[in-house]
Amino acid sequence: MASTATPTSNPKLNADNVRVVLVNARNPLNIGAAARAVSNFGFSHLRLVDPWEPSWAEARSAVGAGAVMEAARVYATLGEAVADCSMVVGTTAVGKRLLRHPVRRLEYGARLLRGQSLQSPVAILFGSEKYGLSNEDMSWCQALMRIPTRPGHGSMNLGQAVAVCLYELVRGGTAPIPARPEPASAIEMERLTEMMLGVLGISGYLHDDSAELKIRRLVRRMELSAADAEVWLGILRQIRWKLDS
Amino acid sequence: MASTATPTSNPKLNADNVRVVLVNARNPLNIGAAARAVSNFGFSHLRLVDPWEPSWAEARSAVGAGAVMEAARVYATLGEAVADCSMVVGTTAVGKRLLRHPVRRLEYGARLLRGQSLQSPVAILFGSEKYGLSNEDMSWCQALMRIPTRPGHGSMNLGQAVAVCLYELVRGGTAPIPARPEPASAIEMERLTEMMLGVLGISGYLHDDSAELKIRRLVRRMELSAADAEVWLGILRQIRWKLDS
Repeated sequence: MASTATPTSNPKLNADNVRVVLVNARNPLNIGAAARAVSNFGFSHLRLVDPWEPSWAEARSAVGAGAVMEAARVYATLGEAVADCSMVVGTTAVGKRLLRHPVRRLEYGARLLRGQSLQSPVAILFGSEKYGLSNEDMSWCQALMRIPTRPGHGSMNLGQAVAVCLYELVRGGTAPIPARPEPASAIEMERLTEMMLGVLGISGYLHDDSAELKIRRLVRRMELSAADAEVWLGILRQIRWKLDS
Repeated sequence: MASTATPTSNPKLNADNVRVVLVNARNPLNIGAAARAVSNFGFSHLRLVDPWEPSWAEARSAVGAGAVMEAARVYATLGEAVADCSMVVGTTAVGKRLLRHPVRRLEYGARLLRGQSLQSPVAILFGSEKYGLSNEDMSWCQALMRIPTRPGHGSMNLGQAVAVCLYELVRGGTAPIPARPEPASAIEMERLTEMMLGVLGISGYLHDDSAELKIRRLVRRMELSAADAEVWLGILRQIRWKLDS
């Protein structure tokens, strides 16, 4: 007999806290396939960042689009789409070079997401069919993970990539995650980023246009707890006050 | 950096001995997606049993069909398609009743296939989009396995099901953990701590004797890479310079 175990019965995952985020998706079939995988594996939250409008309309109106597609939400920017998420993990293909983030195996990234989902909302990002995630998109991520495809032909179809990643999320049999302090939310991390940019602007540290992305990544790599984010904000406020006075 | 490990480097799998068999596939897009997944995960043998002829023609002629599709072989019967295989494992969805075979978790079925692939050809079967594998098809199988989808919405898209199963086959290979950036040394962290204490002293942030310990701990919790420690030192030097001037 088929097992009756459901993904949502996994005590190491809170599927309701997982947001599947498609950035700049262009193909309505892929959007539909992603929604189907979300539903198949017991998740419910699909978010789209700036999808190509005709594709989005077509995907929504497709026969059998289902509850996940109906409940899907569209955001103008990635920042808004992950504002409630304390952990953001991006997906990437083999062959990407010049990544500023460490790229982890899918199993490892999924373990991070599962553990964090027990405490607060988390996001898993998928880039556009053609270009994947941009550097700007990745600057919002604490970690990147990749599916173990072969180097010569690594780029997966979007709907299939979503299915594989969500399968790994619900797949059983991992060691329990040690308790971590409550992590800083995306909003807190962005507040910190802006405060740093202010201080660095006054200090004359910012040289070029890429500085903002660099600082945003630098802040994400700190993997701050909510408590430490508060401390850092206090520190920067004090420095700012001194610089201004 | 992205790992360069390939699925075929898995010593527990002989990918060249794996035949991916689609039985009565009807949708050319699904056939194409299956072929893409076969290629993505480092396999090469796609077999089709009695596909709907127009779909097969369309799938073969699709742009970018690739080497796997070109080498795909068509058989009139399942018996012929698996004639060279010493192990045949079928896939099935939740909700199938009256199965005469035990249904195993995907992880277990994949482990069987991997082990046997080291000795001889093996087959993994996928049924048609609409009906899955028939009882006749299943009679060719030593084992059945199912993907852990949720009971209410268990039926997966064919291309996605192939991707998930092949991912499970290559998963947990010996792909090395991607190297993490070199961590900051204790000396670097202490240099950073002292620079911070200097800046915070000038800014009037330090209130009591325990501040030094707090800042030292705060810096350690950043879990900095050596490269990021350099960046932070540069940032603090600049702030210090501005505060002094």
